[in-house]
Formats: sequence, structure tokens, C-alpha cells
Amino acid sequence: MTQQRIGVAVIGAGMAGRAHCAGYRTAPTLFDPRLPPIHYAAVIDANEAVARDAAMRYGFERSGTDWRELLEADDVDVVSVVVANHLHREIAESLLDAGKHVLCEKPLAATLDDARAMVDAAEKHRDQVAATGFVYRRQPAVAAARDLLTQRLGEASHFNGRYWCDYALDPRAPMTWRYKGGAGTGALADIGSHLIDTAEFICGPIATVGGAALATRVTERAVPVGTTYGHARAELSDVLEPVENDDVATFTATFASGAVGTFSISRIAPGHANSLAFDLMASRGSLSWDMDRPAEFSVLSDLADDGFDGPRTVLVGPAHPYVRGGLPMDFPGVSYGVGDLFGYQARALLEQVAGIDGLPRCAPFADGVRDLTVIDAVRRSAVTGGAAVDVPA
Amino acid sequence: MTQQRIGVAVIGAGMAGRAHCAGYRTAPTLFDPRLPPIHYAAVIDANEAVARDAAMRYGFERSGTDWRELLEADDVDVVSVVVANHLHREIAESLLDAGKHVLCEKPLAATLDDARAMVDAAEKHRDQVAATGFVYRRQPAVAAARDLLTQRLGEASHFNGRYWCDYALDPRAPMTWRYKGGAGTGALADIGSHLIDTAEFICGPIATVGGAALATRVTERAVPVGTTYGHARAELSDVLEPVENDDVATFTATFASGAVGTFSISRIAPGHANSLAFDLMASRGSLSWDMDRPAEFSVLSDLADDGFDGPRTVLVGPAHPYVRGGLPMDFPGVSYGVGDLFGYQARALLEQVAGIDGLPRCAPFADGVRDLTVIDAVRRSAVTGGAAVDVPA
Amino acid sequence: MTQQRIGVAVIGAGMAGRAHCAGYRTAPTLFDPRLPPIHYAAVIDANEAVARDAAMRYGFERSGTDWRELLEADDVDVVSVVVANHLHREIAESLLDAGKHVLCEKPLAATLDDARAMVDAAEKHRDQVAATGFVYRRQPAVAAARDLLTQRLGEASHFNGRYWCDYALDPRAPMTWRYKGGAGTGALADIGSHLIDTAEFICGPIATVGGAALATRVTERAVPVGTTYGHARAELSDVLEPVENDDVATFTATFASGAVGTFSISRIAPGHANSLAFDLMASRGSLSWDMDRPAEFSVLSDLADDGFDGPRTVLVGPAHPYVRGGLPMDFPGVSYGVGDLFGYQARALLEQVAGIDGLPRCAPFADGVRDLTVIDAVRRSAVTGGAAVDVPA
Amino acid sequence: MTQQRIGVAVIGAGMAGRAHCAGYRTAPTLFDPRLPPIHYAAVIDANEAVARDAAMRYGFERSGTDWRELLEADDVDVVSVVVANHLHREIAESLLDAGKHVLCEKPLAATLDDARAMVDAAEKHRDQVAATGFVYRRQPAVAAARDLLTQRLGEASHFNGRYWCDYALDPRAPMTWRYKGGAGTGALADIGSHLIDTAEFICGPIATVGGAALATRVTERAVPVGTTYGHARAELSDVLEPVENDDVATFTATFASGAVGTFSISRIAPGHANSLAFDLMASRGSLSWDMDRPAEFSVLSDLADDGFDGPRTVLVGPAHPYVRGGLPMDFPGVSYGVGDLFGYQARALLEQVAGIDGLPRCAPFADGVRDLTVIDAVRRSAVTGGAAVDVPA
Repeated sequence: MTQQRIGVAVIGAGMAGRAHCAGYRTAPTLFDPRLPPIHYAAVIDANEAVARDAAMRYGFERSGTDWRELLEADDVDVVSVVVANHLHREIAESLLDAGKHVLCEKPLAATLDDARAMVDAAEKHRDQVAATGFVYRRQPAVAAARDLLTQRLGEASHFNGRYWCDYALDPRAPMTWRYKGGAGTGALADIGSHLIDTAEFICGPIATVGGAALATRVTERAVPVGTTYGHARAELSDVLEPVENDDVATFTATFASGAVGTFSISRIAPGHANSLAFDLMASRGSLSWDMDRPAEFSVLSDLADDGFDGPRTVLVGPAHPYVRGGLPMDFPGVSYGVGDLFGYQARALLEQVAGIDGLPRCAPFADGVRDLTVIDAVRRSAVTGGAAVDVPA
Repeated sequence: MTQQRIGVAVIGAGMAGRAHCAGYRTAPTLFDPRLPPIHYAAVIDANEAVARDAAMRYGFERSGTDWRELLEADDVDVVSVVVANHLHREIAESLLDAGKHVLCEKPLAATLDDARAMVDAAEKHRDQVAATGFVYRRQPAVAAARDLLTQRLGEASHFNGRYWCDYALDPRAPMTWRYKGGAGTGALADIGSHLIDTAEFICGPIATVGGAALATRVTERAVPVGTTYGHARAELSDVLEPVENDDVATFTATFASGAVGTFSISRIAPGHANSLAFDLMASRGSLSWDMDRPAEFSVLSDLADDGFDGPRTVLVGPAHPYVRGGLPMDFPGVSYGVGDLFGYQARALLEQVAGIDGLPRCAPFADGVRDLTVIDAVRRSAVTGGAAVDVPA
Repeated sequence: MTQQRIGVAVIGAGMAGRAHCAGYRTAPTLFDPRLPPIHYAAVIDANEAVARDAAMRYGFERSGTDWRELLEADDVDVVSVVVANHLHREIAESLLDAGKHVLCEKPLAATLDDARAMVDAAEKHRDQVAATGFVYRRQPAVAAARDLLTQRLGEASHFNGRYWCDYALDPRAPMTWRYKGGAGTGALADIGSHLIDTAEFICGPIATVGGAALATRVTERAVPVGTTYGHARAELSDVLEPVENDDVATFTATFASGAVGTFSISRIAPGHANSLAFDLMASRGSLSWDMDRPAEFSVLSDLADDGFDGPRTVLVGPAHPYVRGGLPMDFPGVSYGVGDLFGYQARALLEQVAGIDGLPRCAPFADGVRDLTVIDAVRRSAVTGGAAVDVPA
Repeated sequence: MTQQRIGVAVIGAGMAGRAHCAGYRTAPTLFDPRLPPIHYAAVIDANEAVARDAAMRYGFERSGTDWRELLEADDVDVVSVVVANHLHREIAESLLDAGKHVLCEKPLAATLDDARAMVDAAEKHRDQVAATGFVYRRQPAVAAARDLLTQRLGEASHFNGRYWCDYALDPRAPMTWRYKGGAGTGALADIGSHLIDTAEFICGPIATVGGAALATRVTERAVPVGTTYGHARAELSDVLEPVENDDVATFTATFASGAVGTFSISRIAPGHANSLAFDLMASRGSLSWDMDRPAEFSVLSDLADDGFDGPRTVLVGPAHPYVRGGLPMDFPGVSYGVGDLFGYQARALLEQVAGIDGLPRCAPFADGVRDLTVIDAVRRSAVTGGAAVDVPA
């Protein structure tokens, strides 16, 4: 069988961009061997040295500083967009118009309007993939939670979700683009977007939100000297700039199913480096998970009369989504990390491009809009002092 | 030194009433030996056999079925009121008028109006103690959390509180008075009252609530045959009655300090027999506790630059409130249970009656009103679909 | 029904002695109301003030400094012996000869010979109870482990037991009688005795031990100024005395059943105040418990083919031994502490004295000899450099 | 800078062999970009289809069924040997004689004699790397434990090590080469070898062992129909063959430092898929780790007088070995899995071949002999009923 190779490129070679690069490199090693050959074409970053390093490291043929070069590159079919949110729209629209498949990081755009425009662009190119990078849907335990709720746990009554990070806790963490953009574009958009997507992925759509609060606790930060990547420390200048968006975001929600939810999001949570977590209560069982221990979850699904019940602590293994065949070692107890999820995501995208059945498809741009729609409703609740706000279907 | 003895009585000999009886029995064995002699006078319960059993068991002199007999009993100085909420007001007012000190279980009354009337009654008898039984303030870890927030953790940014029980999960749990009374008198009043008091005890007053939802998921229950106590199973009759109040309650809050909070309360939470829990995030540390493991808490209070940080798992010991001298074995790792808290509470009450300094004083009736005021604000938010509601100071 | 009252006394009013006093006080409040009336007769301690304090605190009629007064006391039927190990034999023999029932703390004696003589004494007074205070058999989770191994877990293959404390970690902890007596009388006898009893209680008799090591890491300690109790800090004198016995003890064992075991005992284990813990592996399941979290255990008892298995975290509740009726609040999640176990133990002893069926009987002196027999075999293995040693049946 | 490329090959493409393949593929993406170009030359497996699949999957140029072809392959510099233990010697000796660098899986050989011969072969080729695959030394937490013991925890007093798996628990798991070879070649050699290496890696050399027991609990197994890989289930034939080696292995050890240790190893431990775990007690702190949660460890390293102490739960992050620069996302909380360790190991080997300083060097063959020397001492203790046995230095 001859297969046409798929050419891939990544725009943005910071921490998350490198994770995309690694994901493409891992994708053909996972699961069964049906993927077409992958051509590692290009890595683009505004910082030339950073782009070059990533290209060499992950085996991409070339690097560059201008993403527009990809528009006419014949050897590029698929592009990951991993840059600041306000740049997503222009890049994604241009790539789609140029006939490329696009995987755009979340939140899909800096504004809901931008995101909607991106969906419109995708609509014009229905034969191309336009995907949002909700990588945590690829957590085996998250996928198991969704399946278990459908199959064994009964009706959901309550979802208690948290996403607690500490990257902004230190007042000396440098000012970056993350701290600009107004209420709702901070912790809510950056990490709350993941939590909201996870909640809807598992429990279905949110119908209303309320009681929202968006709080900024570190009110100004120093501009760094030079370029910074990810959440790295940096030398600071004397220039202080105001933090424009939220450190902490909270709200409640009612799902269309009738289940209720509480949401707690913070980028200044001491002791929580990257803790996306939830407890899910349902009529015939419950399930809890914390990304601090990603490869395990706690589940109670068999209610007994003998008082002997207690939740099981399950290590993800071949019985769970993504694990069988997903890594060289696929028995319970070998664990995995966030990096592995980017491999799953890249694999899913390439399968979709190649028209192969396999992993669950990537979230379309519409899911990115959906996520921003909920975020926008939360923001509107917050700016009105916590009023109840319906979320458009 | 000759001391006048203190006579004690308990009204209501169900599960919680027996805990009060045991508490009075334990109180003089704890801490230092300054308490006056305790006279164990009477246990009252509508069910004569139940009253008699409790009296004999805990060494009370007599039992009876009519609480009014206590009003004229010369040998009774202190009375615990541990009966259905709607009976609290009449009993407490009568006892106060009869010159007794009163410890009333929470929630202080079935309605805010009743509770306010009880405060008025207490105002008329300022030389008598009129206390609300917020027994979880006596948890060593809760008291430690309050102290640590003041002393070491900096400014609170977020409180995520849960109280999850499963006593109402089984649709075959019998209909009792707990399921009557309308929205806000169910899980919110029964266990949410503890969670709200714990939150304000640690973080100070709540200024606004919002996004509230009160959901009933098990809509009718069978009336039992015969009398039931506590959460015990019972033989069921064919008579079904509607559940009138909330199985699940959720809301957000903003504290007067500016901190925000999320609150999640359920009596139908599979796998959670009695899990009052919270995470407290502050500017210089964080603290987490779950009553499933009451004798330990997790705390991060020393933020370092070396990435080596992680929260400590602390077993409560002599360094923490209530532990030194509080039990025969007072080193970390001997643990304790809810029963021990009733000993602390009874001790505190008796110290207060005797005018001795020692344990923190009991919560006055006013704190019971305060708790119901927050509950009422939550209820009002819920009935208006989640609107923001100010909590009167 | 008229019942003859039972008079109780306690010799030794240190930390553990006070726990015995509290236990007798609690005993009649637990479970059903069949116990005869208890007469709280006397507390004896070499330190008069200490004895007096305990007597007053726990409601005993009198106190004294000479245990011999109990021999002729008509109002004393049952005596707890809670003093230094080398005093056990003389006191217990005298009490038995005086017609008293005796509950002696573990280890039963300072030497195996002494302990055997105590059994001989008990044999002469078969109508009196002569019990060893293996109080941890009263842990609901330990009793559940024993039951579950019999009923659901299949054949035991391996027991990994630890008892880790830190009371001797600080080199400034004062010299006491605990540090005197030669290899095998230190951590092995003090806390290892509990671990060995727990292991045999659950898994049956140990047939051989081997590979034993007894290590002393803090080689001398300062004599305190004045009297000390329990593990309390004290003002130290300038007098240093050598530590004569073991800080750490390790060995392996083969049980008569064919199961094997590893044992690790330390009184200098940083971060472990009182951690008696074990993992039990069997053909159809496993069970783990750590006294740091006494009210829960982890159990896997239903092996499935679907990869979904994981151990349950069970909170002890009414389905487990000791809990139903054992405390006022007997649902899962109310927890309990070591103090409660002394209530169970006292109750069991009083039931036995009164000829009532109820709780499992107390361990006889023979079980105390058995425990010392295993300890002696471990000691012999250690002094011969780790040789295998058969344990007499 | 022009660099000579390094050609790599892997012999054995089962579960562990594929992990080696993936490791070589990942190696150049980690840390800094100094590695020479890697040429992915060949994958060899007795099963042609398996070899071909692995080669294609991980980007190796060719596959084959005869490892001898590598001896003359000019494009192969480095070879991983990942086949049954009894084949290690011949293959490794041949490869070394052919001028190749060799990384051989543990245990280094089926017998101590074979392993010593391999060291002799390595001695003849000192300019070639001859490494043993102790991959768990690459666990960030294990490396941190070693560093912390040296720097902050004081003198080790006790090591309690466990390696509990369940791959052999099911009596229907098929007969494979793992169950052949006599006492000491089962759980002790397969997984105990990792535990012993981990113990000595952290605590230094073991001086004596004793009290050893080697138990076989599942005494016969069915031969599968067809080929099996790793621990996979398989269709079983009617042919039963006896299990020749140990399901459970236990022993104690005394380290040259004077610390003592207990070791518990089982391949039939219900609920423990792959739990390599230890507790390390030292004079100024303690550290615990369980591979079930590989990316975290518990550590107490700052002993205070205030009773506030408790061990920290630390998520590995940039402060710990291997993490900084080791994965695209290197902040605490992103976790990692066993697969990542093979990337570290491959990287370390390639650095060593290229003469680059970087990661800690691979364990030499001598360390593999050392490991087997301890295993042999344990075996000798076991066959003499648990006698103490000195371990040659």
C-alpha cells in the first residue's frame, strides 16, 4: 500500500509548542501502524534560535520566524498554532484559506467574536480539520470518567471542579501577555477553559452559570528583561505594569441534565502546581480525579448494602481508553505524563487527516467557541456582581 | 476549695443526644481538674425506653418523657437541647426563662424568625449561657486552620468547602422530619449549616452569596413503621410522602475580607459518609482538611524558592488546640473521633457556667442566627434562580 | 434483676494508666446495657499527686501510692497493672493470689521466665481473669482484617508489618526505664510486641524467625531532673547513661500457614509518631492499614478480569467489629482514637468477669507469653548475627 | 561542528524492547542539543513480524530475526539487549568482541558465573560501554532520595523496601520463560533485582543478608498457544508445566553503613500492578516513595521542636534530577511515566558513547554482577532455611 505522506509544522516553540512537536514525533509509534508516513517540515517561532533548537531537537526539517511562509509550503499539510491567544484568529484563518489542517491551542481566541469568525472560516473549508487543543480530554482517567458516567454511575447530581495552579503566586513572576486582556482572560481563560471543557466533556452542556467572581490579588508585576518562555523565572526590570485579569475565578453552574456544579479556578494556589481536579457525584456512584496523580482515579460504582463500600483507587491500565497499545508499556502502574497526551492528540489529528478510524476525533473549532461562550457567561455574571446568566445552547 | 456542683440534663436521646450525654460524662476527665463536681441529673426523650437507656448508660440519675419537668428541677443548671429543629425555640425560651443555661443543637431553629426570638430571649438572661452547638469548631484541625490563617498563611484568597454525606442516597432510607420543611431546610440546613459556620469561623464573615441552587433528587420516601433514630435503616410502610427539601445545595460567596468561596453540600454523595472538607488558599500558604481523616491536615506555610516545596501532612498533636491535656494520650498519631468533640464542647460549656478560663467559649445564640442568616441568603439566591444576595452583617 | 457491682482499680497513672481509667469509665456506656454496676475504687501510683489527680478526674473513690493495699481491699475485683515491665510479675502474682482479676499491660513481663511464672499463677486461679493488654486487637480495622482473611481473601502469602514511632528520635529525649534492659527490651518489646501480636492475631502463629537485627543508634541519654511520664520532654541533668536496648529491630518470619512476613520496628522513625501498619497479601485479595489513619483500611477482595480493579478505601462503620453500638455515633466517617480502644478493652474485661457474652474476650496471659516467645526468638536470631530460629509452638 | 552519527540497534522487540526503541527515539529531544545525530539502524526479534512492526513504528531502518547480523553491521555502534536472561551472555560477549557498545537489561545474566564472564569481556573492551539497564535509577524521585540522604537526611537507620506486582497472581497467566530456572530466578531476579539495586543506589552496599525465604504459591501453569509478549494474557493449551521459581521473596539486610533493611518482593500481590516502593529512615529525616505515584515523594527533612512537623508531599519538578530540560513541560505536576525513564537511559548511554558530560552514567556490567551477588546471597540464605550470609564486597 502506498500512502501519501503528511507534512506537519508547528507555530510557536515555547513550552507548549515543544510539547506539540514531541507529540507529532511520538504519534506514529503509538497504537497500530496504519498512519501514513509523517514529514516533519517546519517549526516557526518569532525567536529564531528557539525555532531552530526545537526543529533540530524534534527532527523537523527546517525552522523559521514567519508563520506566513507555511501558507505556500507544499510540504506542509497540518499546522499546530501555539502562540498568544490574540494571534490565533489571523493565523488560523490564513492557514485554512491556504488549505491547511489546523490544530489551535485553547482558548481558541482572545475574544468570542474572534472565535466565531474562526468557526466561520472552518465552515468554508469543511474538508479540512479545524481542531481545538483540548488536550486533557486525552487523559485516560477523564475519558474513563465520561464512559463510566454513561455506563455505570447513573444520573449525575453534582460536579465539583477545581483547577489550581501556582504559576502566578509569586509576585515576582514576570509580567507576560498572560496578565493582559481584562477580566475573564486570566485564570478563567487560561486554565478555567480546560476545566469547563472537562466538565462539559463529562457531564454535557452547562445551561446557566451564576455567582461568578473574578478576583485579582497580585495587582502589578515587573516587566522582564529579555524573552521568557512558559512559566519560567526571569530577570526583572524596574518597569511595573498592572495585572489586567483574574487570578481567581469562581462560579456555580447548572447543567442541562439538571446536575449542578461548583467551579474554583486559581493561578495563585500555594502547593498546587497544576492540579486540575474534580469530584463527580451521581445516583449510583461517584468518581474523583486529580491531575496531581494523573494515572489514578477513585471510583465507587457498586453500591452495596453491607456497609463495606468504599471507593476504589484505580490505576489506569489496559481497561481504560488510550492505554492499550498507547505506550510501549501498557499495564497499570507504569504511569504517564502530560507529555504523553500530546502524543495522543497528534495521533488523533493525523488519523483524522488520513481518514482513519481510531482515537476519538479532535474537538472542532465549534467546541472552542462553546468553551468561550461559557467563559463569556461567567464573565458577564461576574461583572454584574454574580447574577445568574443563561448560557446559549 | 468547696465548689457548687453543676447539674446537667439532656433533652433528646437519639444519636446526637447520646453524644451530648457522653460529652458531659467525659468533660471533667479532660484538661486540668478545675471543674466543679458535675451532677448528672436527667435525660428526657419522648420515647421512655430510649430516655431510660441513655440515663443508665451515661450515669444520669433519672429519665423522663416531658422536658417541662426540667423547668422546675432544682438540680438542673445546664440543659442540652437535641431535638427536631422546629422544637428548639419553645424549649430554649422556656429553659432560659426558668433560669437554665442552654446548649442548643444547630441549626438553631427551623426559621430565622424563631432563631431571632431565641436571641431576644437570651438577651433577657445575660447571666445565663445560651449556646449553639457548632461542635466542629472543636475539631483540633479546624481550630488550627483558624490560627494558622491568622498567624502564618497571609491573606485568604479562596475557600473551597464541601460537606458530603450519603445518608439520603438510598431511596429506601425512611421518611423522617429531616425531609420536611421546604427548600433550604434539607442538606443546606442540616449539614451546610456546619460548613458555613466552619467557613466563617476560619475566614470571617461572608458578605454576599450567589449562584445558589437547591436540588431534590430523591423526590419521595416511604414512611417507616415505628420509631427511627439518627440515620438508621427501618422497616418501611407503603405510605410514600414527598421530600420537601434539598438533597444538594451549591453556591458561591464573597467574604468581607475579599476572599471568595465555593460551597458544595450534598446528602446523596456516594462514598462520602460524613466528609466535611475544605481547601483554604492564601497569599503565603494553603491548608486542606477532610473530616474523613479528622486527625490530620495538609498545610503549606513556608514558601521557598527552590522548588522543593510541597504541603506537609500533619497529624494533630500537642502543638495543636484541644490536644494537649485533652485526652489521656496526647501525642500525634493517637487520633480521635467526633465523639471526643462533644467532650470538648461540654467541657467548654461547663467552664463557662463555672466562670473558669480554659477552652474557647461556646458559640452564642447570635452565631446560630448568623448561620441561619447566611442560609437564608443562599435560599433567597436559589429561589430567584441564582441571583446575588447580600448577607446582612 | 439485681447484680453485684464490680470494683475496679488501676495501678500506674501515667499516660497509659490514665487511658485504662478512662476505659473503665467509658465501658458501661458502650453497646448494650447488661453490665453490672461498676464501682470505681482506687487509683495507685508511686507519685501521690499523680494518683490523686487521676482518681478525681475519672471518678475513682480513692487514691494511694502502695499497690499492696489493693490485695486486701474488699471493694476491688478487677485491677489494671500499668507500670514498668519488670514490676508486672510480682504485682500480678500477688493480685491473683488475693483473688483479683488482672489486666496486665504488654509486654507481659520483662523476661520470658517471669511471664511463664505469671501463666503458672494464672493456672492456679482459673476462675479469675488474667489478661494481657493487647489493646490494638480492638482496632475495628484490625479485627476486620482478621475476619476478612478468614472469609474473603483466601490464603495469605505475605505480611509486611511496620511499627514506626519517633518518641526516641530526639537524642535529648530523657533517659527512662524504657532504655534499660538489653537487646530486645527496647523497640522490639515496647512496640514490636504490639506488631507481633497483631501479625499472629491476623495470620496465625509464626513458626520461624530469621535475619534479625537489633540496632541502637542513640547510644546515651541524659537523666532527667524530676519525674517524667509517657514520652514527655523534661529538664535534663548532666548525667548521661548508656542506652541498653534497641532503637530499631528487623526480622523476617515464616508463619505456620506457609505465609512469609517482614517486620520493621523503630522508635526513631522521623515523621511517624505512632504508625503501626501492615500490608497483607493473599491469594484472592489484599488489605492494608496504617494506624496514622486508624478508621480506614484499604482492601481488594473481588478480583475481576476487566482491569478495573483497585483497592477500596473503606471507612470503618457499622459493618465492622466494635463499631455498631460501640460509640454514640456509629456511622462511617465519625472516626475514633486509641482512647476508644481502651473503652472496648475495659468493656470486654468486665463482660468476662461478669460472665456475659459480648465482645471478643481479652487475650490471656498465655498470649503474653506467646508474644515474648516470639520476641525471644527474634532476640536469639539477632545475637547470633541473624540466624534462623524456630519459635516453639 | 560536524559530528559522527551514532548507529543504534535493539535486540528483542517485546514490551521492554519497544521501550528501548522509544527511548532512543526520544533521547535527542531531551535536555540540551549536544548529541551527535542518531542513526536508527535495526530492530531484531526472533519473531519477524514483531521486529518489523517495531522498526517501522520507531523509525529504525531495518528489521531482522538474527542478532548475529549486527556483529558485522558497520552502521551499528550501540546495541540494547532485551531478551531472556539466559541469552544475555552470549549476545553481549559477541557484541563486545565485535566492537559494539552494549546496554543489557537486568538481571545481567541468568547466573552469577555468566555475569562475571560478561564483566571479564567488558574488561577486555574498556573503550566500549558495557552497561546494565537499571532504569529505575533514572526515576527523578529515586535520584532525589539518594541526593537528599547525602545532603540533608543524616545517617540512614532503616530501609523498608517492597516490590509488589500482580502479573503472576492469576493462576491462568500463561507459562513463560519467566517461571523457569529455580529458586531465586523468579520474583527475586525479575523485580527484586530492581529493588536491590535501588536500595544500594540510595544507601550504599549491603554487607549481609539473612532470614531469606523464597516461596512458590502458584505451582503450575498452562503453556500458551502461540507466542506471548510481556505479561499479556494468552490462549492456553492443556499442557501444564511446573513453576520452578519464586513468587514471593523476603529477607533482611545490614548495609555496610550500619543501617538495616527489610525487603519484600512479590509477583502475586493483589492490587499492586507495579509498586516499587520504599521508606527510608535517617537521623535527621525520612523519605518515602511508591512507583504507583512515581512523580511524587514524601519527605521530612527539617525536624522542628514545635510538634508542627509532618512529611511534605513533593511533586517532582525542576528542582529534582532529570526534570529540568528533561521533558518539554518541566514544571511540577505534569507527571511522567516509566516510558520517560527509557528516554533518560538512552540519552545517558549516547552521551557516554559520545564522550559528553551530562546525565549520570549508566550502571556498568560490574553493577549487574553486584546485583546478582546480593541475589545469590539471598538465595543461599533461603536454601539454608534463612541463615545469615555475608555478601562479598
